[in-house]
Amino acid sequence: MKIAELGEFGLINLIQSISDEFRNPEQPSWQRLLIGIGDDTAAWQGDTHIQLATTDTLVQDIHFDLDIVTWEELGWKALAVNLSDIAAMGGVPQYALVSLACPGEIEVENISKLCRSVAALGANFGVAIVGGNLTAAANLVVSITVLGRSINRSILKRSAATPGEQIAVTGHLGLSAAGLEMLKGKISLDTETANTFRKGHLQPVPRVKEGQTLVEQGVKTAIDISDGLVADLDHICQASKVNARVDIAQLPVHPLVEANFPNYLELALCRGEDYELLFTADKAVVNQARRALDCPVTVIGDVVKQSLPNRVTLLDSNGNVVSYNTGGWEHFKESNRAEIP
Amino acid sequence: MKIAELGEFGLINLIQSISDEFRNPEQPSWQRLLIGIGDDTAAWQGDTHIQLATTDTLVQDIHFDLDIVTWEELGWKALAVNLSDIAAMGGVPQYALVSLACPGEIEVENISKLCRSVAALGANFGVAIVGGNLTAAANLVVSITVLGRSINRSILKRSAATPGEQIAVTGHLGLSAAGLEMLKGKISLDTETANTFRKGHLQPVPRVKEGQTLVEQGVKTAIDISDGLVADLDHICQASKVNARVDIAQLPVHPLVEANFPNYLELALCRGEDYELLFTADKAVVNQARRALDCPVTVIGDVVKQSLPNRVTLLDSNGNVVSYNTGGWEHFKESNRAEIP
Repeated sequence: MKIAELGEFGLINLIQSISDEFRNPEQPSWQRLLIGIGDDTAAWQGDTHIQLATTDTLVQDIHFDLDIVTWEELGWKALAVNLSDIAAMGGVPQYALVSLACPGEIEVENISKLCRSVAALGANFGVAIVGGNLTAAANLVVSITVLGRSINRSILKRSAATPGEQIAVTGHLGLSAAGLEMLKGKISLDTETANTFRKGHLQPVPRVKEGQTLVEQGVKTAIDISDGLVADLDHICQASKVNARVDIAQLPVHPLVEANFPNYLELALCRGEDYELLFTADKAVVNQARRALDCPVTVIGDVVKQSLPNRVTLLDSNGNVVSYNTGGWEHFKESNRAEIP
Repeated sequence: MKIAELGEFGLINLIQSISDEFRNPEQPSWQRLLIGIGDDTAAWQGDTHIQLATTDTLVQDIHFDLDIVTWEELGWKALAVNLSDIAAMGGVPQYALVSLACPGEIEVENISKLCRSVAALGANFGVAIVGGNLTAAANLVVSITVLGRSINRSILKRSAATPGEQIAVTGHLGLSAAGLEMLKGKISLDTETANTFRKGHLQPVPRVKEGQTLVEQGVKTAIDISDGLVADLDHICQASKVNARVDIAQLPVHPLVEANFPNYLELALCRGEDYELLFTADKAVVNQARRALDCPVTVIGDVVKQSLPNRVTLLDSNGNVVSYNTGGWEHFKESNRAEIP
């Protein structure tokens, strides 16, 4: 079987099972491990805090087109997606390793712009670039690893959602997908809207502080929206062994997305890369978190027992089930995009 | 200017200067940083130990040819080069993140072999695979990050070499280069020799335990031989602001390399990837380290003040200077291979 047939998540499961096969409970590394393969970041018990490590790779012509993105945007996004993974754990990012595999004919000035952008975004979040790797390659590959730690002794997980909890999301949805559609040339817009969409797709602001606030307010379960709201909620349901109901009328779709895209629900639900935080908690904790956060927090549904036909059920304002295909970004497979009416 | 003109080390200096520009002494990450860009691994002060992080990338058709290496060898080498970076600091490797960018048509079985090999080698050194990243790409790129910590409160550095110290090296030299020459089809050999060379190039054994022993015995300065003995000794000299003299008659060239390659000195001095540890220390400490180590330790020269025309001077058995070009592996540039008589 080829990996294109197995798909990204199948491959992750395979690697997880191989890693598990070599698990040795007598070794300190395994004893201290809290979260291994399959979550946003790896986590293990350090001497005083929980240690976090995450890595993400952007590949030319897969994740970005050098004719479209600027070098500054590429650097920003390459770091931001990693910071968002640390945010999803409510952690404190500390250090970044930047690895570049790139063709020799790239201008030094462009690599300089890229690195400066990484360093500048890092500085905003207290992150120092402390190493990495350089190698020649036919196509540009930007791979960043971010290391961090827990804010206190707790982190957010995917696996702690409990029936009865509310499902909430920070900020607005759909900007990144709108930006991608626009950059693909599918729509033309006024400059201000175009800039908002472009920034939404290429310069997402990771919710680092917000993730830490969620931990401080007693939230246990979160994920960042990278694969798509439905797909990421599905990850929570799978890890927590629960089901989720989402009231699509409550989705905080960005007004500019709703105004410019008839398929705005698909953009908000299934396209991903919004890098907002999706979390679950009791109503009282969600309200407390809302008061503590500077960004919008919207309740979009609730966690229920494993009793529904799908892990994630979408409901319209009349309470009718809305059908969809598995959405979200998945490598190696032709993605089954959602069919939202 | 193109990065091919600037070269790998010029690019590292550029990124280092950009990182430094954003240094903020008020941020905890910067306050705790011990070693940033330019060493084998990044290091920062954790709450009780020094934390270590290193990353290395192998790119198809740059670092490996899938017609030559097996998937097991590729996995082994991808992890081993990172473990060797931790060994160069005398550290304890703990966790690995494995990132694969790969074409969809690769067989699942092959990725499985690769990952199993990484996990098995990791298990030998107490390292758990706890995360990574998967993405599609036109060419296979294997990028591994290893996280670790110091064995006690000390690590080995490049920057602590002092005039008067001896220069010593573990094990034997030249096997990796011999393996590469053989795999390029430049020489045919009996099976046993061929296997030794192949293993030397594709399955180097990182000197993890040995690095820890060096720390315990009071050694302060070390590097692993990845770029080549001369190039790596040059890194020590540059970081420590000293010069080095090497007596080439003392080099522990592997007997099979000496027997099969007329240019064995070039292979041992300038080709790299032997992943032995090169270290400097007072004679008494070197002797102590030799007694504590299970592997051969050979004194090959001494550290002197910055007084010589080159940072590294090679001497023959009569004390005459042997000329060489800058050797060692450097990306982006046509490497100036050594001309050893």
